[in-house]
Amino acid sequence: MSVLRKEMFDLPAGMIYLDGNSLGPLPRAVAARVAQAITGEWGAHLIKGWNVDGWMALPSRVGDAVGQLIGAPAGSVVMGDTLSIKVYQALSAALQMRPDRKVVLSDNGNFPTDLYMADGLIRHLSHGHRLDVVDPEVVMDAITDEVAAVMLTQVDYRTGRMHDIAAITAKAHAVGAVMIWDLAHSAGAVPVDIAGCHAEFAVGCTYKYLNGGPGAPAFIYVRPDLADSVQPALAGWLGHAAPFAFDLDYRPAPGVERMRVGTPPVIQLAALEAALEVWEGVEMGALRAASIALSEVFIREVEARCPELTLASPRDASLRGSQVSFRFEHGYAAMQALIARDVIGDFRAPDTMRFGFTPLYLDEGDVVRAAEIIEEVICGRLWHRPEYLARQRVT
Amino acid sequence: MSVLRKEMFDLPAGMIYLDGNSLGPLPRAVAARVAQAITGEWGAHLIKGWNVDGWMALPSRVGDAVGQLIGAPAGSVVMGDTLSIKVYQALSAALQMRPDRKVVLSDNGNFPTDLYMADGLIRHLSHGHRLDVVDPEVVMDAITDEVAAVMLTQVDYRTGRMHDIAAITAKAHAVGAVMIWDLAHSAGAVPVDIAGCHAEFAVGCTYKYLNGGPGAPAFIYVRPDLADSVQPALAGWLGHAAPFAFDLDYRPAPGVERMRVGTPPVIQLAALEAALEVWEGVEMGALRAASIALSEVFIREVEARCPELTLASPRDASLRGSQVSFRFEHGYAAMQALIARDVIGDFRAPDTMRFGFTPLYLDEGDVVRAAEIIEEVICGRLWHRPEYLARQRVT
Repeated sequence: MSVLRKEMFDLPAGMIYLDGNSLGPLPRAVAARVAQAITGEWGAHLIKGWNVDGWMALPSRVGDAVGQLIGAPAGSVVMGDTLSIKVYQALSAALQMRPDRKVVLSDNGNFPTDLYMADGLIRHLSHGHRLDVVDPEVVMDAITDEVAAVMLTQVDYRTGRMHDIAAITAKAHAVGAVMIWDLAHSAGAVPVDIAGCHAEFAVGCTYKYLNGGPGAPAFIYVRPDLADSVQPALAGWLGHAAPFAFDLDYRPAPGVERMRVGTPPVIQLAALEAALEVWEGVEMGALRAASIALSEVFIREVEARCPELTLASPRDASLRGSQVSFRFEHGYAAMQALIARDVIGDFRAPDTMRFGFTPLYLDEGDVVRAAEIIEEVICGRLWHRPEYLARQRVT
Repeated sequence: MSVLRKEMFDLPAGMIYLDGNSLGPLPRAVAARVAQAITGEWGAHLIKGWNVDGWMALPSRVGDAVGQLIGAPAGSVVMGDTLSIKVYQALSAALQMRPDRKVVLSDNGNFPTDLYMADGLIRHLSHGHRLDVVDPEVVMDAITDEVAAVMLTQVDYRTGRMHDIAAITAKAHAVGAVMIWDLAHSAGAVPVDIAGCHAEFAVGCTYKYLNGGPGAPAFIYVRPDLADSVQPALAGWLGHAAPFAFDLDYRPAPGVERMRVGTPPVIQLAALEAALEVWEGVEMGALRAASIALSEVFIREVEARCPELTLASPRDASLRGSQVSFRFEHGYAAMQALIARDVIGDFRAPDTMRFGFTPLYLDEGDVVRAAEIIEEVICGRLWHRPEYLARQRVT
């Protein structure tokens, strides 16, 4: 059964959007929902909106909707803040669970902010922890009984290479380490069974495959059997057991609600909630099959047309998330030329051209047409123009 | 010169809104600006919005607009996250600046989340720090050379009692402590000269007197001479010197930009930026004079009509922020009865009825009318009905 539902998105005419792995397009339901939140809720009800419009429950209600896409039971996911903050919450809680261990293990395919947040946490704690960052290929061997927490992003943001969640989590648990998965490039892209793998924590963002819009809030999952005992380092009032009692002392809320921190971003949550309506009736196995079909067509068509490009993603679709990357020496300029022709991917230094495949709004015709335009740009050396060659801004 | 500009707000007809100290009303410019951000920016430009629509610069651009209202120079304020997170950032940086001191000093008039965040930070650091919470009246005496950081909210959320920023900051500095001001109930309410008092840090929210909407992002100010040396505990990629280089190692950005953490909430920032347009041409001295005039009328009218109510705020207007609180044994029920009659204030346990005064959209007629309705409710014992007496939800 097709998962294609282009009519639910507001895509610019003529654009082939292969960057939903970075920022998803605008779902049609969002604008009206946000207008309602602003005019019909905030404007009409003002402070009463917290009760009558259910704003206070939004982080949990939307969390449950996200949870359905990652195999998390109701009540185990809550929304808020940014992915960086959620990484900090998970890792700080994990380190408190393993006070005798001093190693955080990650890999260099992790998104940099995860590594930065871990580094900031460790430096700040100043208790002799260290962050070991290894190659993705040797992660399994590096999981030893020195490791307090294994913190990995399932799908590599550069190449789409995908870790085996079940196997790595099992290894982490075999040596007594806590497992934290970053699902930024997984949620809405590949089937995830986070409860089934027994990982303690998962985090992710919602502006990529979940189409929540720029700056959409992040999510955190805490394994239900731990949710009443994890200690929040970010002890905000909305994670308090009784926020409106205004006690002077902190007492964490039961369950994952303790991972709430400050006032929830109601407008962004309204946008996200509307965006998630497009998932109604989407079966993740069917989505995955469609994603693989699109990426296989793309690889075949691009390789047949452009020998100058080198596949940077795993060739085996089962080892790949929902994106395909190619290396090309002049990748930055080539991507600029593609964008000028309404084929939107993105570029990651030094030479990687990234293309995301999102079967909710892309079909085989789009992918073949994109490959044709890539051929024009590469074989026709259309990228070799001053406006495209200008050095990319890496401030 | 009057600062009244009711026409710039979308206030429900007949409502007298005295809760702008909790959630400001909807400025008229917001709905169109947010619709443009959603449809004209995200929908039309997708990933390109980060560049062509200036999303990446929003936290600084809006920060400068907020800075103008608190006496902060351009480039010293940045937006993002929630106030709770900003408190954590300021306090964690402050503790690193005074490694030999172990005391954080605050008072019990501080908003609880500030205390919770401090408590969470201290517990998590586990380096022998302690949080001393004293009565507001004895703060000055409690500032000793044991204190690493003094962390206070200028205006008490319950009573409106106002600390003397200049005197307390001077005392903190005299003993070598770092000063952190929470301006949640100050920004847009009273004149603040944060640069003039030389405090190291200030934080605040923007959904109260700045009318940014539910969940609007928070702000942080770092004194410019320190901004290149403070060490962020929350070391997110958008506070990195070169976020798009995707280095594996964290290197903080120059200046206050290092206090950015994750992806900025573009939709909420767009709402806030539009909301801040109402401040164009508002002189803070004139705003303060108008606020005092309104609150003096309110106190006079309520006291003349309702001897059952006891003033909980300082009688001296110079010691009071932009709110007035009264104690009344049946305050919760009375506030419910007022809200049912479209006089919107709020209640804080155990017995405090709070009323905020915001001269941008309130005039003397509104205040007198509110007092008349309060008289009807109190003298007429209209609060003594089952629907109002139902116990308040303090979960």
